[in-house]
Amino acid sequence: MPATSDPPTQPRDFVRREDDILERIAAIVSGRTAPRGELHVGDDAAVLAGFDGDVIVSTDMAVGGVHLDLDRFPLDDLGYKAVAAAISDLAAMGASPRGAVVSVGSPRGTDLERLHRGMAEAAAVLACPIVGGDLSAASDVLVAVTVLGEAPRGSAVRRDGARAGDELFVTGPLGRAAAGLRRRRGGVALEDELVTAHRRPVARLAEGRAARTGGAHAMMDLSDGLGIDLHRMCDASKVGFELAEVPVAGGATVDEALGGGEDYELLIATGDGAHLLEAFLAAGLARPIRIGRVVADEAVRTWRGEPLGPTGWQHPI
Amino acid sequence: MPATSDPPTQPRDFVRREDDILERIAAIVSGRTAPRGELHVGDDAAVLAGFDGDVIVSTDMAVGGVHLDLDRFPLDDLGYKAVAAAISDLAAMGASPRGAVVSVGSPRGTDLERLHRGMAEAAAVLACPIVGGDLSAASDVLVAVTVLGEAPRGSAVRRDGARAGDELFVTGPLGRAAAGLRRRRGGVALEDELVTAHRRPVARLAEGRAARTGGAHAMMDLSDGLGIDLHRMCDASKVGFELAEVPVAGGATVDEALGGGEDYELLIATGDGAHLLEAFLAAGLARPIRIGRVVADEAVRTWRGEPLGPTGWQHPI
Repeated sequence: MPATSDPPTQPRDFVRREDDILERIAAIVSGRTAPRGELHVGDDAAVLAGFDGDVIVSTDMAVGGVHLDLDRFPLDDLGYKAVAAAISDLAAMGASPRGAVVSVGSPRGTDLERLHRGMAEAAAVLACPIVGGDLSAASDVLVAVTVLGEAPRGSAVRRDGARAGDELFVTGPLGRAAAGLRRRRGGVALEDELVTAHRRPVARLAEGRAARTGGAHAMMDLSDGLGIDLHRMCDASKVGFELAEVPVAGGATVDEALGGGEDYELLIATGDGAHLLEAFLAAGLARPIRIGRVVADEAVRTWRGEPLGPTGWQHPI
Repeated sequence: MPATSDPPTQPRDFVRREDDILERIAAIVSGRTAPRGELHVGDDAAVLAGFDGDVIVSTDMAVGGVHLDLDRFPLDDLGYKAVAAAISDLAAMGASPRGAVVSVGSPRGTDLERLHRGMAEAAAVLACPIVGGDLSAASDVLVAVTVLGEAPRGSAVRRDGARAGDELFVTGPLGRAAAGLRRRRGGVALEDELVTAHRRPVARLAEGRAARTGGAHAMMDLSDGLGIDLHRMCDASKVGFELAEVPVAGGATVDEALGGGEDYELLIATGDGAHLLEAFLAAGLARPIRIGRVVADEAVRTWRGEPLGPTGWQHPI
C-alpha cells in the first residue's frame, strides 16, 4: 500500500528506492524459478496454478520484542520463526504448503536482507516458496506471514472433530522451545540443540499428512502449549479429556512441557490408534506418543485424575 | 504466533483473554456463514473450496500514521483502506476475490472492534469474506491483509505484457484520493466526496475482469500514481510510452492526478481498443479513458512530447 506523505512529486532516485530494495529482497526470497503457469514475486499479485483439492490458508504475525527477544536472537530468527509457525498451521490441517506471502514492517536502519534470509531459509527447509510480499515503515520489526496449502477436497482435519473414546496423541516430547528460551536467557549459545528448537521450529508437515490419511478425527498444532491447546480442541469439540502422560523432552521441565508453547508438535485425536500408528510407520515417521483420551463430559478435564485448568503462554494483544 | 513471555502458567482468566477477543472479532468479520465444504474463522487455518482455475494471491500492509493519518481519519478507515487496497491487486490481475485473512498489530487500548468493523465493511462491499486472522501487540496500529482470488487458468493479466503500438487506458479520472487528503487536511468533513475517495477507495473488480476478457495485454492498479506506475508497467514490459492525456478528476490538480496515488483505477495496455471498449460496455461499465500509447523504444517516456520521469508518492520502508 502506498504511504500517505505530501504529494505530489519526489526526485527520481527517491521514488525508485522502494523498487530497488524490493528487487534485492526478491532475489533473496525467490529461491527457485516459478513453475510453468505460475507467477511469483514482482506483479500486483502472484499466480499459483493447479491446486489439488481445497485451498488451505492461514496468517500469523510475529513482532520483534513480543514473539522473539531481539536482544538475544538475531533478526533472521524472527523471519524463520514467523514462516515456520505459519506453515505449522498447514501441518495442523494435514495440508501441503504451496506458497507464502510476507508483509514486513520495520523502522529505518533494519537489516531487511537478514530478516528475509531467515524467511527464505524456513521457506526452503519446509518447501513453501515465498511468492509475494510488501514492505512498510513501522515502529517495530514485524512480519505477517500468510501461507497457502492444499489438501484433497473435504479432507482437512479440523480441531472440532474429537469424540468421546478417542485416543489423544502428540507427535513428540514437549517443552523443548521453552527450555531453549530459558537456556538462551542463561547465556547458552544459539547453536545449542534446545535453543535451536526455540529459534528454528520444525513444522510437522509429514506428520500432519500421516494423521490425515491415518484417520485423525481432530488435530491442531501446539503453538501455545498442551495445557491451553488441549482445552481449545476439547472446547471446539464439546468434549472433555483425561490426560495421562505429559511427555517431557530431555532438558525441559514438566511446566515447560505443559505450558511452554512454541513446540509446534501436533495434537491428534483418533478413534483408531492402531491405524494412526500404521500411517506414521508407513511414512517413516517417529511413533506418535499416546497422552490420554477424550471423554464425553465436557467438564471433565483432568491430568492423572486431578483437575487441570488451562495453562499456557501470555498473548499480549 | 504465541508471544514469548515468562512461561509457564497464567491464571485461567488471563489465558482465555485472547480467545474472548478473538470471538468478538470473529463475530464482526464473519458476515456470512461459510459455504458448504468451507471453514472460515476459528481453526488453525481456513478452508476454501472449489477454486475456478488459478489461485491469485497478494498481501498488503497498512500502518497507522504511515498509510493513514489517524489524527484526521477514524480507525475503521484504516481497516477499510487496507482491505480495499489489497483487493485492488486482485482487480489488477482480472481476478475475482474468494477470501481474505487479516493480521492486526496494535498497542494496548486500541479499539480493535472498530478497526475490524472497517475491514468487514470493505469485505462486504467487495464481496470478499474475511476467513481468518491473527492479533498481536505492536507499537503501531497496523493491518496486513492477504487476499485470495481466482481467475481462469493462465488468464491473469500481468504488468509485463505491454507491446509497442498498444493503446493505454485508465478506468477513471485521477487525483481524487490526493485531493481528498488535501481537503481533509484543510478541515473538510469525512463525508465529502473526495475525502471519501481517500478513505474508502473502490477496487475496480468488474473493470479488471472486463479488461481480462476484453483482451488486455498488461494491467496494474494505480496505487502509487500514474506518474510512477506507468514507468513500472513499461519497465516490466521493456517498452516506452507516449502519454497524451492525464484525465484529472473534478476538484483535483494535474499534479494530484499524475503523482497522487491511491486512486486504485486500473492502467490497461491493449492492442485492440475497440474490443476493450466493447467488453466494458457489455458489462455496463463506464468507458475507459484513452491516455496514450506504448512505443518500442524503452527510453521514450514522454507526456505531450516532453520527457516525463517517474513521479509518485514516497514509500517509507
